Amino acid sequence: MSRSLNIAVIPGDGIGREVVAQGLKVLSTVLPQDVKLETKEYDLGAQRWHRTGETLPDAELEALKGHDAILLGAIGDPSVPSGVLERGLLLKLRFAFDHYVNLRPSKLFPNTSTPLAGQPEIDFVVVREGTEGPYTGNGGSLRTGTPAEVATEVSLNTAYGVERVVRDAYERANARPRKKLTLVHKNNVLVYAGHLWKNIFDAVGQEYPEVTTDYLHVDAATIFFVTQPERFDVIVTDNLFGDILTDLAAAVSGGIGLAASGNINPTGAFPSMFEPVHGSAPDIAGTGKADPTATVLSVALLLRHLGFEPEAVRIEEAVSADLAERDGSFRTTDEIGDALSVRVAS
Amino acid sequence: MSRSLNIAVIPGDGIGREVVAQGLKVLSTVLPQDVKLETKEYDLGAQRWHRTGETLPDAELEALKGHDAILLGAIGDPSVPSGVLERGLLLKLRFAFDHYVNLRPSKLFPNTSTPLAGQPEIDFVVVREGTEGPYTGNGGSLRTGTPAEVATEVSLNTAYGVERVVRDAYERANARPRKKLTLVHKNNVLVYAGHLWKNIFDAVGQEYPEVTTDYLHVDAATIFFVTQPERFDVIVTDNLFGDILTDLAAAVSGGIGLAASGNINPTGAFPSMFEPVHGSAPDIAGTGKADPTATVLSVALLLRHLGFEPEAVRIEEAVSADLAERDGSFRTTDEIGDALSVRVAS
Ligand SMILES: CC(C)[C@H](C(=O)O)[C@@H](O)C(=O)O
Ligand SMILES: CC(C)[C@H](C(=O)O)[C@@H](O)C(=O)O
Repeated sequence: MSRSLNIAVIPGDGIGREVVAQGLKVLSTVLPQDVKLETKEYDLGAQRWHRTGETLPDAELEALKGHDAILLGAIGDPSVPSGVLERGLLLKLRFAFDHYVNLRPSKLFPNTSTPLAGQPEIDFVVVREGTEGPYTGNGGSLRTGTPAEVATEVSLNTAYGVERVVRDAYERANARPRKKLTLVHKNNVLVYAGHLWKNIFDAVGQEYPEVTTDYLHVDAATIFFVTQPERFDVIVTDNLFGDILTDLAAAVSGGIGLAASGNINPTGAFPSMFEPVHGSAPDIAGTGKADPTATVLSVALLLRHLGFEPEAVRIEEAVSADLAERDGSFRTTDEIGDALSVRVAS
Repeated sequence: MSRSLNIAVIPGDGIGREVVAQGLKVLSTVLPQDVKLETKEYDLGAQRWHRTGETLPDAELEALKGHDAILLGAIGDPSVPSGVLERGLLLKLRFAFDHYVNLRPSKLFPNTSTPLAGQPEIDFVVVREGTEGPYTGNGGSLRTGTPAEVATEVSLNTAYGVERVVRDAYERANARPRKKLTLVHKNNVLVYAGHLWKNIFDAVGQEYPEVTTDYLHVDAATIFFVTQPERFDVIVTDNLFGDILTDLAAAVSGGIGLAASGNINPTGAFPSMFEPVHGSAPDIAGTGKADPTATVLSVALLLRHLGFEPEAVRIEEAVSADLAERDGSFRTTDEIGDALSVRVAS
């Protein structure tokens, strides 16, 4: 019996294509012989928008549903008005495919530089809610462009949406050795959403007696990210706070070049999507300077999500070993991808 | 002719009273002989709420209006439900007195510890909007406590409110040697509020041709706070982003024990309020461990606001000199206050 893996690939903009190529290289190397890898590329992003005015046509959204998972490089270009591709493509995918778990692990690998003094222990994962909060596009503007303009943004939060992501976070915390879960919100100011989150967090916690819990306001959480990152194990938080915290987390744990993410639909109703946290970095596109490691680590998350746990671990170990031997000399995107490929093959 | 300074003092909770005492000590020492200092204490905070159920009665709000400025220690205690004192006292004051400029300078003084490697140059000021955004208390909850609950938080933004704080930030940037202003928002997702901010930022910028401008998404800004804090001069941002960024800024520039803030009404229609960024820290209240420096620096901001520029500078120089001579040995709250008093006197 032969198995197959059917991956949709969205290279996107800027360095997206370069890093995705390395991700696929490692993916095809690490897969067991009996697994047939099929990939289909989708031409979405800035160029497509310039050419056709389309961000994500219905037919392509429909076609994407047929894949086991999606690998995305990066979306965005300064030539496109801010918000067009984010709302019309990236967020549209997250919402259409109900990616309610936005998973962002942070690990400071050995021999990896951090802006923090004293090389702290960092090994936590942020479970960012992916389908609610201030990201729903609910808002508007009245008397736009006049001195009397009023603009609103509405954060929408439901018990349904919060409960499922909080439960996912408890499961993840329960499966880790330290079994610690921190809720981050701002419930002293955003009292309605904050109390919803806190009440559900406490209620679901009853079902996980072995998980130690903690609550932090988002402002205080940023302090601990730089002064005591070792205090975190699993963090669960809202869509916007998760966006902010995971960039900071990436910065302190080796930089945005290493930060992987998964936009996950745990029910399997829709394909999950894996992407590096970094953007399209048009300033270095084509120079070979992009570090594909974040994409390769995103491939590990993809494999884990699809049940290829040993292969995911092989990739993570390869990255760890590769980083441990980096001596600061320049390697191209391709060279890093090759080095990782060689490691996962052996 | 004799002048007088009539300050309302809200010691508040936890370490609030201890640090405020040092702030007043330094204030009375630094003031010119001919200025008569009058202070009136307001009993507001957790104890008052426990005793009477009141957070900020109308009569006291009215009385506070008669002062030249307000010095606040810290508000909050775990015994009070989250949000009660924040919304009912702290934010009520900021909103009632139209404190639309929440001013938060960050400076890494010499010989001061930072969690960042390599002792970077940090000297920037965040102008945080203080009366709009997600802080207006606009939101609600439906079917509260049931599995069908929906909770909203509405971010309100007006051209009126954004324009005045952006203008204030340009003025501050224009008055500084580097003349650089960075807008921080998330206009690729929060498109309505984000475009309002960006359009006004660009329009007002026309009037300040000497100010160099820059835009960053809030997530990217947190990265630069830890990797390149020296790139910032003046930052202008929304109420919630400002809350998050200024805690992070405090963390990287010597810790929350040094971070001062002013809730300023630049028109003078209402008294401005000065407070350390830190909270009430009930765990160390009464132990003498609280560092009063943030409060003393807030007094400097108060003096500057009221036109006592030389006195403000004297305090800042005293703090700088005091920090430069710290050798890590423990000094009590009172001892630090005394040391700063002695320095500003000479
Ligand atoms: C590009 C943007 C829409 C996106 C987000 O805000 O979620 C990005 O910052 C991320 O974190 O994946
Ligand atoms: C206590 C809280 C309401 C307050 C805020 O969110 O503004 C605090 O965090 C601050 O930054 O002054």
